[in-house]
Amino acid sequence: MAKCRAPVFVGADKRLEVREYDLPDLKAGEVLVKMMTAGICGTDVHMWHNPKTPAPMIFGHENVGVIAELGEGKKLDAVGQEINEGDLVVFGGFVPCGSCYTCTIAKEPTSCRKGITYGTTSNNTPPYLRGGYAEYVHLVPNAGIVKIPSERQVKKALLAVIGNRTIVHGFEKIGGLQAGDTVLVQGSGPIGLAALIQSKLSGAGRIIMVGAPESRLKVAKDLGADQVVNIEEAKAPDDRVRLVNDLTEGRGADVVIEASGGSTAVEEGIMMTRIGGKYLIIGQATDYGPRAINPYNITRKQLRVAGSWAAMPHHLFRAMQTLRDLEIPLDKLFTHRFRVEEATEGLETVDSLQSIIAVIQHK
Amino acid sequence: MAKCRAPVFVGADKRLEVREYDLPDLKAGEVLVKMMTAGICGTDVHMWHNPKTPAPMIFGHENVGVIAELGEGKKLDAVGQEINEGDLVVFGGFVPCGSCYTCTIAKEPTSCRKGITYGTTSNNTPPYLRGGYAEYVHLVPNAGIVKIPSERQVKKALLAVIGNRTIVHGFEKIGGLQAGDTVLVQGSGPIGLAALIQSKLSGAGRIIMVGAPESRLKVAKDLGADQVVNIEEAKAPDDRVRLVNDLTEGRGADVVIEASGGSTAVEEGIMMTRIGGKYLIIGQATDYGPRAINPYNITRKQLRVAGSWAAMPHHLFRAMQTLRDLEIPLDKLFTHRFRVEEATEGLETVDSLQSIIAVIQHK
Amino acid sequence: MAKCRAPVFVGADKRLEVREYDLPDLKAGEVLVKMMTAGICGTDVHMWHNPKTPAPMIFGHENVGVIAELGEGKKLDAVGQEINEGDLVVFGGFVPCGSCYTCTIAKEPTSCRKGITYGTTSNNTPPYLRGGYAEYVHLVPNAGIVKIPSERQVKKALLAVIGNRTIVHGFEKIGGLQAGDTVLVQGSGPIGLAALIQSKLSGAGRIIMVGAPESRLKVAKDLGADQVVNIEEAKAPDDRVRLVNDLTEGRGADVVIEASGGSTAVEEGIMMTRIGGKYLIIGQATDYGPRAINPYNITRKQLRVAGSWAAMPHHLFRAMQTLRDLEIPLDKLFTHRFRVEEATEGLETVDSLQSIIAVIQHK
Amino acid sequence: MAKCRAPVFVGADKRLEVREYDLPDLKAGEVLVKMMTAGICGTDVHMWHNPKTPAPMIFGHENVGVIAELGEGKKLDAVGQEINEGDLVVFGGFVPCGSCYTCTIAKEPTSCRKGITYGTTSNNTPPYLRGGYAEYVHLVPNAGIVKIPSERQVKKALLAVIGNRTIVHGFEKIGGLQAGDTVLVQGSGPIGLAALIQSKLSGAGRIIMVGAPESRLKVAKDLGADQVVNIEEAKAPDDRVRLVNDLTEGRGADVVIEASGGSTAVEEGIMMTRIGGKYLIIGQATDYGPRAINPYNITRKQLRVAGSWAAMPHHLFRAMQTLRDLEIPLDKLFTHRFRVEEATEGLETVDSLQSIIAVIQHK
Repeated sequence: MAKCRAPVFVGADKRLEVREYDLPDLKAGEVLVKMMTAGICGTDVHMWHNPKTPAPMIFGHENVGVIAELGEGKKLDAVGQEINEGDLVVFGGFVPCGSCYTCTIAKEPTSCRKGITYGTTSNNTPPYLRGGYAEYVHLVPNAGIVKIPSERQVKKALLAVIGNRTIVHGFEKIGGLQAGDTVLVQGSGPIGLAALIQSKLSGAGRIIMVGAPESRLKVAKDLGADQVVNIEEAKAPDDRVRLVNDLTEGRGADVVIEASGGSTAVEEGIMMTRIGGKYLIIGQATDYGPRAINPYNITRKQLRVAGSWAAMPHHLFRAMQTLRDLEIPLDKLFTHRFRVEEATEGLETVDSLQSIIAVIQHK
Repeated sequence: MAKCRAPVFVGADKRLEVREYDLPDLKAGEVLVKMMTAGICGTDVHMWHNPKTPAPMIFGHENVGVIAELGEGKKLDAVGQEINEGDLVVFGGFVPCGSCYTCTIAKEPTSCRKGITYGTTSNNTPPYLRGGYAEYVHLVPNAGIVKIPSERQVKKALLAVIGNRTIVHGFEKIGGLQAGDTVLVQGSGPIGLAALIQSKLSGAGRIIMVGAPESRLKVAKDLGADQVVNIEEAKAPDDRVRLVNDLTEGRGADVVIEASGGSTAVEEGIMMTRIGGKYLIIGQATDYGPRAINPYNITRKQLRVAGSWAAMPHHLFRAMQTLRDLEIPLDKLFTHRFRVEEATEGLETVDSLQSIIAVIQHK
Repeated sequence: MAKCRAPVFVGADKRLEVREYDLPDLKAGEVLVKMMTAGICGTDVHMWHNPKTPAPMIFGHENVGVIAELGEGKKLDAVGQEINEGDLVVFGGFVPCGSCYTCTIAKEPTSCRKGITYGTTSNNTPPYLRGGYAEYVHLVPNAGIVKIPSERQVKKALLAVIGNRTIVHGFEKIGGLQAGDTVLVQGSGPIGLAALIQSKLSGAGRIIMVGAPESRLKVAKDLGADQVVNIEEAKAPDDRVRLVNDLTEGRGADVVIEASGGSTAVEEGIMMTRIGGKYLIIGQATDYGPRAINPYNITRKQLRVAGSWAAMPHHLFRAMQTLRDLEIPLDKLFTHRFRVEEATEGLETVDSLQSIIAVIQHK
Repeated sequence: MAKCRAPVFVGADKRLEVREYDLPDLKAGEVLVKMMTAGICGTDVHMWHNPKTPAPMIFGHENVGVIAELGEGKKLDAVGQEINEGDLVVFGGFVPCGSCYTCTIAKEPTSCRKGITYGTTSNNTPPYLRGGYAEYVHLVPNAGIVKIPSERQVKKALLAVIGNRTIVHGFEKIGGLQAGDTVLVQGSGPIGLAALIQSKLSGAGRIIMVGAPESRLKVAKDLGADQVVNIEEAKAPDDRVRLVNDLTEGRGADVVIEASGGSTAVEEGIMMTRIGGKYLIIGQATDYGPRAINPYNITRKQLRVAGSWAAMPHHLFRAMQTLRDLEIPLDKLFTHRFRVEEATEGLETVDSLQSIIAVIQHK
């Protein structure tokens, strides 16, 4: 029986342990993917540090691989494209249940609490291969895979799954940009950079990025940011608000995208949004409890605020479409790659903000 | 020269002083209105208590009266209806400047900071008559008056200007209700009751009102509230969230409208909104600084939040249309009326929450 | 082996032939429904007259029944409610494929061309029971059934599946009504009456119905129509446009809903919509080829026009919610009922416009 | 008294006659503009040929000039920017009345029927200078001028007023583009090319232009069209629909923009729009009466159709913003310029489709 290896989380801050697993037999509709690349996400780092994270676990919820085997039945990806063994595919870490109130009535499947997850839950039951850090991933039927049209699009597909799909979804929630909009992005990590890319694509007239460290802001400029505000220099939120005010004729930005998760970010973002502007809150993905936020400004400035969480396969597909022909300095984005044995070094690299995007590279 | 009387604010918590003013001559486009009724708003009470309120001032920004005189020029109300002396009219307290960025580009005239106000700024310069507590009000051209079709509609017009126009505007901001929605209203004052009326009109399937005191909740039930939560009984926000949760199959309401201005209201409201639901924040009209609000829930539940401020004449016109044929127990709403000399008692009555709606009744 | 009877279409304009079928064995996820009531739709009449309709066929795509048997597996209805044998359920006639571009990317599953249909395709292959005129219907997994909360809601569920769900969907497409809107409905058949009901529910300030015959317009008035235009009296489209113009201060209606399928209806409807108004085209459900329509008016009046086709289970669920507590003169709507043997008489009754809603009543 | 010259329309197809006019005195709020450039619009050609066009008339409703004199009062442009004599400004040909139902309630001022027009109504009354072909134009107060930030932006401002503002408005009506959309533009005249520019700016993934002649399609390619369909080659509408079908995987475009005014264009456009797609009808600006259009496809494909007419100053301002830093081959767009004496040659040039954009160049 064929085997595969995976770096396994075995406890908070412990070195990931490389273990070997049997490749499973597939039931109807199931898919076995031989992994090529898995993004090392900030969420992985948080889980790695968190004593409450259930062990064992295989991380990896931003994944590109090759279909190794297809179970019986319909051979279609999540957007209706025919798939076969050998096809390149991309997939995320969550499959909504499809039958709860959230999925069927509220039509917000990414907020479903009953779905199946990859890369963020324990792999203590068969078939174990539930995260993209492993050499193979076993997928339930309809797990949201999307075919990658060619090998040249693999890195674009990774960009799509790492942050761009989330922004595509978020823009849908906020009613889109209008060409010429002044956009402010809070946070210069992978999601913030994706916000920058998608804003540029959508015709933003000016893009201001608020983030750190300098290395990321430099990449932001390469990707089209018109101005950057370095939060290591402008350390006080009030100073940053003042700077943004000065950059926007005293008005604030038309659209602000929170992609930082910072503790003061939402209050700042509200201050940085112009009267009647839009504020998209994507980055507050961890429950740190209440923050100091002044709701008066939402009423007085008549803001439209929207939260958005993760993305569905059609957002991923759309993100891939938007990136397909775009000239992007991919090498400046994919700065670090690690082998299965080096997964722990990968987490450390992301933790220390040395990388822009770091990945587990399987071959 | 004809004269008129007005109860004038002369200092925080002091008795309003009845003074006499000359009726002004009108320039082109100006209008002189003989007042019938002016709402006594909670804002008036706040200003009355506030040492920073500039004196002298004539309160009154929710007004119904009769056109006493029209200056030269175009005789049209704000929605294009012909007007003449003797016509009944309704008007609010703010006229946007019409030429700033907020008015012309952002298209949010109610957020304009450069307009002219009635009832909320000092009347220390001619023509002095700048608030509806006075027997006459002098209006600049294009001051946003709307004709009332008949005497029988006067109370409906008051209801429209007191809160319903604000909700019409707010519903526009939040994209409207869908028939069958479960709506939760935070706050049982005039704005909250207007939210209830407009929600009922818009096909809400169920309306839950969270407020106090009992007398107002009783009126809320008469107006169509299906359930009420008395915040004097359920004093802890967590308890209220739990109650609402129980009333909504554990999901929260489809649409929540904040009309209370309460210090914990926004955090509560977010907790009370279902996944993918809408949250309209109208009540946070005073800047009390930051509150404890957990932004994670906006992201995780993918809420759409909107602020809305005041209303334009077309919202007022629409509000009047929606109320025109509606059967409402008006006597239960208009509970207290005061003469010019009794304006101070009017403020005290509103302050103590004895009234539902209290007014200065000029004749 | 248990048997059931069904009136079967065997050729254009021929009497439906009552045949007997074996009740099938169920595979995982399949459902067998014992029918209570099936709507006799105008579409059934069209198919009955049409020589191209493939025979044999069992009509019936607006269905209420009782779950007789559930195949293995998940026991949930289309909106996530638990279902068991004996439960009352409602279901329509179309199950989208779920995997084509239309379903996955365009997110317009009701326009899917690859789904499974009930009541509108030939039943020449097992398990034969593919239409609600039969005593039993066999359903594939995930066929879009929605549980009816109680026996008292059966007629409301029928109303929901017969036309209200379609209007709920249509209102979603057109961005909803605003309370106070003047709504004009073209067509006084079941869909038009559903448009009237949902408009009334959504706060329409005035509803004008254009249709015939007089008996239906009388019901329309009972349901809340403020004005009716009888097309048997005002026979020329121009006259009707003039009448509507007079009823709307020369402006046209805020929202017009085409629910007639008439050959001149769309051109008329465009003429009857006010500048900046909305036009929802639901009734043009048969391809009769091009009509004479002046596109200049769409540009000049800046209309928003939307087409909407059928409905999904969550629209059906929402329609049921909106009708649940509504007082409706149900007896005036459900005017005719026919037994299996009388299905042909049912079609004739609908054809001659004698009925408002006619049904096959199974017990 | 200073004089100015203007080429005046004196009868259908007659040579425009150069006449001399006195420069008028200005009342409060009025503005006198010394013209630099006026677009020669297809509408001008239609009026020139039309026996019903009232003479005398000075054409010119797409205008750039310099403020020669400002009447007393507020010195602000239509978007609140301070203006002074000597400032470069751009303005269109219509000033809504601001007080009718269309302006105040329907909020569709560009559809107002009571406003003041420049370049499209007779100049038979003082102050005569009512069109941009004249050396000076006299403007009423609040005539919708927008300041041009610098001389280098003059051509961009012309592009904005000639078609881009109309598309900005249209995109607002249709709810904007989504990055990655496949956009099809019908018509390769100035409005069609503006649609192309704005679609490209808004992130269109692919743009197909259907038009003629070859010279314009060549420019379309330079501006970013991915594919072109030459209607002089594919003469039958059915052939064009088939070609577009082939270019879009059999689905049609996500968004179709009608900018041709063609007699079969709307029926074609509907056929070329994908299920659930958007169709923006801007080009049907002349009332040629009914066309053959199949409404079934609107219902069956669930299209969202919107008409849009002209634009307001804030659309013009936004259009200028979007173009400001864009690299455009301006010389390929502005192909022909004519002096006042040559205005008739200008009309002939536009009529024969030799030009892309032709203008009256005053100095």
